[in-house]
Amino acid sequence: MARESADVRKITPKSQDFAEWYVEVVRRADLADYTEIKGCMVIKPYGYGLWENLRDALDRRIKATGHRNAYFPLFVPESLLQKEADHVEGFAPEVAWVTHGGSEPLEERLAIRPTSEAVICSIYAKWVQSYRDLPVLINQWANVVRWEKRTRLFLRTSEFLWQEGHTCHRTHDEARGEVMKMLEVYREFLETELAIPAIPGRKTASERFPGAEDTFTVEALMGNGWALQAGTSHDLGQHFAKVFGIKFLDEDQAEKFVWQTSWGVSTRLVGGVVMTHGDDQGLILPPRIAPVQAILVPIFNDKNRDEVLPKARAIQRDLAAVARVEIDDRDGFKPGWKYNDWEMRGVPLRIEVGPRDLEAGQAVLARRDTGAKETVSLGAVKSELPGRLEALQRALLDRARAFRDENTRPAKTLAEAGEILENQRGFVATGWDGSPETEARIKEETKATIRCIPLDGGDPEPGMTDVVSGKPAQHRVLLARAF
Amino acid sequence: MARESADVRKITPKSQDFAEWYVEVVRRADLADYTEIKGCMVIKPYGYGLWENLRDALDRRIKATGHRNAYFPLFVPESLLQKEADHVEGFAPEVAWVTHGGSEPLEERLAIRPTSEAVICSIYAKWVQSYRDLPVLINQWANVVRWEKRTRLFLRTSEFLWQEGHTCHRTHDEARGEVMKMLEVYREFLETELAIPAIPGRKTASERFPGAEDTFTVEALMGNGWALQAGTSHDLGQHFAKVFGIKFLDEDQAEKFVWQTSWGVSTRLVGGVVMTHGDDQGLILPPRIAPVQAILVPIFNDKNRDEVLPKARAIQRDLAAVARVEIDDRDGFKPGWKYNDWEMRGVPLRIEVGPRDLEAGQAVLARRDTGAKETVSLGAVKSELPGRLEALQRALLDRARAFRDENTRPAKTLAEAGEILENQRGFVATGWDGSPETEARIKEETKATIRCIPLDGGDPEPGMTDVVSGKPAQHRVLLARAF
Repeated sequence: MARESADVRKITPKSQDFAEWYVEVVRRADLADYTEIKGCMVIKPYGYGLWENLRDALDRRIKATGHRNAYFPLFVPESLLQKEADHVEGFAPEVAWVTHGGSEPLEERLAIRPTSEAVICSIYAKWVQSYRDLPVLINQWANVVRWEKRTRLFLRTSEFLWQEGHTCHRTHDEARGEVMKMLEVYREFLETELAIPAIPGRKTASERFPGAEDTFTVEALMGNGWALQAGTSHDLGQHFAKVFGIKFLDEDQAEKFVWQTSWGVSTRLVGGVVMTHGDDQGLILPPRIAPVQAILVPIFNDKNRDEVLPKARAIQRDLAAVARVEIDDRDGFKPGWKYNDWEMRGVPLRIEVGPRDLEAGQAVLARRDTGAKETVSLGAVKSELPGRLEALQRALLDRARAFRDENTRPAKTLAEAGEILENQRGFVATGWDGSPETEARIKEETKATIRCIPLDGGDPEPGMTDVVSGKPAQHRVLLARAF
Repeated sequence: MARESADVRKITPKSQDFAEWYVEVVRRADLADYTEIKGCMVIKPYGYGLWENLRDALDRRIKATGHRNAYFPLFVPESLLQKEADHVEGFAPEVAWVTHGGSEPLEERLAIRPTSEAVICSIYAKWVQSYRDLPVLINQWANVVRWEKRTRLFLRTSEFLWQEGHTCHRTHDEARGEVMKMLEVYREFLETELAIPAIPGRKTASERFPGAEDTFTVEALMGNGWALQAGTSHDLGQHFAKVFGIKFLDEDQAEKFVWQTSWGVSTRLVGGVVMTHGDDQGLILPPRIAPVQAILVPIFNDKNRDEVLPKARAIQRDLAAVARVEIDDRDGFKPGWKYNDWEMRGVPLRIEVGPRDLEAGQAVLARRDTGAKETVSLGAVKSELPGRLEALQRALLDRARAFRDENTRPAKTLAEAGEILENQRGFVATGWDGSPETEARIKEETKATIRCIPLDGGDPEPGMTDVVSGKPAQHRVLLARAF
């Protein structure tokens, strides 16, 4: 395919208008765009290539933990969706309804899946008969639809792509183990592959998945100091098993309901990558998931074109054996323009090769994150490339972690919390007595929510009090405004 | 996940009732099942694993030919679907319509994509401006919905999974080259990976994709002598470009419409694999796409369990380095029962290891296709496994090719063709004068259709006449009844 040219005019600075900066980066780097179809985006090849890398990296982990993929129907008959009361209450307002097949009205309306618990549980009820059928460890990669009035590319669209794991277990303990295992899979995946240091924690009752007994989350801090819920893992208890009749004959000959979990991440993670690492020049992509890890830009003019290009192409072919290296050999564009173009797209490393470099047997390596340039002998580029990409990956994670730590601040009073959330943003760590009243008050006064009770650091510090009531704190919680 | 047990009771013989045999194999081998959701199936983990292998093998070829994946919206607004007259006429009768978002009626009905030409062309109209933007070489993996009254697992379901390539070119020649290139990609992929020897050919006007200028197909012969259209590649001409306004400024400064193609294969290929290779014991899977290439069955009893199992597991771990080898170490099932179970699932090779085998340093290898058993020294199994799998893959292709050739018969008259199609089935090669009248007559009298004018062997033989009119034949065509 002809390579699209990124629009390399200056973009709105991040610090000036983060929302505008975000949309400009996503569109100009060719990740995605709006369509005339209400609430739906198109994921362009470059953005989809990023999603493929991210998806494959997670899929490997899902399989390595014993799960297998399957595919369930897109449609949820209205009667199935209504079975679990909290579930339908949570999702019905944002469901797209199919009412006609061809020219005929349907006997029963079909929801397009906003999530697949109802469909999958109705099927599991047939599959599970005996304790020998357990555990059921299945994942699905699919599109889902949640009708949205206000759209933001990747972060909030009517249709999005995701994976949803749905498991059944013999005991609550085993199910709880699965919930925590997948939360840790998400945390490690975000850290290792996306260079996003997310905080695992428990959601409050009001923030639970509709129908769940308990919801766990990995919360990440974006570049504007808002939080992003990057993935969730739900303990469904026996809520769905009871209404859908998922029962098994246990070894003791007693009929029992299964214990279930579900867990998912979506294409919103692509938005998370943009908002965690990007800068005023555009995207910065972690090397492990970057569709192009290094771009070779040959420097040539009409006179030395035929001398430089074949050599540059040979270098690119050689490097392609150790990393995803492409060459930008387009005519009619100046090197500087190309540099900007690839910076906008967030390619981690740039390799510049001009006629004098070739003569001296060297190349110039430029890092996307720091802008640092270094001259390296051509013989060493290939052997050093993987290590340099790994170092850059680590640097991105370190920077994101430092940013998060700098932007996690304690507050003792609601006024103090509100002041931080308004002016400095980030996470605010504070005490909570566990009451819904405090939670509601926080939301009202600060527009922030309790993002989670961190798994590590969720116990109250000695003497810690609730940020609203002043009563002794039951938990140390993290507040933030969120996407 | 706990391994499901295939239902290994005898199935309906293929020769007795092919349709019943097919459904029993698909369900008992755990490939897929019906659901209570009208027209929709669930693809079970084993069937989805097969689809993943098949999908990945094709995806590599799609990328190697310069295409990139992207993702476009699920919804097609009614006004977009209606733009191309033939297209809407072909698809409207089988469209699922979304009329409500949450509790509100939509201003315009949305079709769930039955195919994505309309959506993608409306987006390409914005992306393509200059000859520099061409070619556009994009593919999408997605679900599509075509409302079906009668359902057959994998072959005909309301929702199915597929890939659809959509490309734009500067000239008709270039577009035509793309159409033929992708047809050849399909042919080679079917042959190499699925061991299905498909015949590439051109469709008649009446069998074209709605809105296409020309449609090409790869036609395969199934075990009951019916044809399966395994993939199609369409020359869309400028039909869609003109109604959607996909124009570019050419180098000569003239504004021109692009030339387009689209091409696709779907989950029906899984059905094609079942119907090409399966037998009365169940599935037979080509090794290259089999989720499990070899199953190791340790033979043990309560006494020697602890002696046999650790050694068998060590062998399996060792073999897993060269092929997808799993072990069936379930308690409570006799070896013979396990053999049947894995035969039903079509696993190409079985490796039996009992206490005496271990003592003698050997294993018994059994082929799924021929049932042949052979004793091989344990030291040789690992080095020989890849070669044996390749040989089995070739044998399946050879057998399918021989079956197809034996079941391709010439006919000079309609009566003769009808007799063959009724009693022997298979392909009938005959002459066609190119008239719609002959085509209609064939359908009426024999329930068969002209499957294609083969690319290789589509010219009339000397003296060949039309099977109905007796006029000189313009083409040599293949007739068959089809799924």
